[in-house]
Amino acid sequence: MEYTIQTSVSGEFDAVVDATIAALEDEGFGVLCDIDVKATFEKKLGDEFRQYRILGACDPALAQEGLAEEIELGALLPCNLIVYEADDGDIVVSAVAPDQLMGIPDNDALTPIAAEVTDRFKRVLAAVRDDLESVSGS
Amino acid sequence: MEYTIQTSVSGEFDAVVDATIAALEDEGFGVLCDIDVKATFEKKLGDEFRQYRILGACDPALAQEGLAEEIELGALLPCNLIVYEADDGDIVVSAVAPDQLMGIPDNDALTPIAAEVTDRFKRVLAAVRDDLESVSGS
Repeated sequence: MEYTIQTSVSGEFDAVVDATIAALEDEGFGVLCDIDVKATFEKKLGDEFRQYRILGACDPALAQEGLAEEIELGALLPCNLIVYEADDGDIVVSAVAPDQLMGIPDNDALTPIAAEVTDRFKRVLAAVRDDLESVSGS
Repeated sequence: MEYTIQTSVSGEFDAVVDATIAALEDEGFGVLCDIDVKATFEKKLGDEFRQYRILGACDPALAQEGLAEEIELGALLPCNLIVYEADDGDIVVSAVAPDQLMGIPDNDALTPIAAEVTDRFKRVLAAVRDDLESVSGS
């Protein structure tokens, strides 16, 4: 089962992270959680790792709506976007597909919320792609 | 489909959160993300909400093992535990069941990792229960 939607861009890693956060904000999402996986592995394990960030995105109004339908839903929140260096050097931006995750709770009332988040995440990925292309083309 | 495992205790909310974080640490998990949902809703929406915390737990060694098997897995990390006030005044501690979430990626190599995390989360919930009972009984 596919559980993410993805795009791939060329560019500097931190610039892609910044573009992702900006695109999330434009779509009404705050980043409530920002995990630097590379730094965490280096600190905790002493191991090298590729650049890899986990951004936990949340639209408070949609989250509130979801929790009103299902109080346990917080176990699946926030919805993550990950940004990481691919083996070929490109930067992958990948968003969890809430319409897959939301399928886990057997609650039809969550379907339109999941669809809304999925649509917005698709626009976030498109905006990141446009942003990085316009930068690299300028 | 069930996507969480749960326990319910009586006690003071913050004490249950502290006991949960301590029990996670005893099982090798750091809390990489700590979202105060009540405070977030009050700040962003101006709305009252029940006490509700989302704790993103991660064992770096297991996470590294999982990412080596599947680079997109970060979209499902960290694994959340939620602590919230139930309608009856008890405090619910609920952990995402990674063996359900991990079922989403079609990758059998993740099965033992998910089983390991699930086992540890069960021990975390048991430890919280024991901790709170021993406090209330003392």
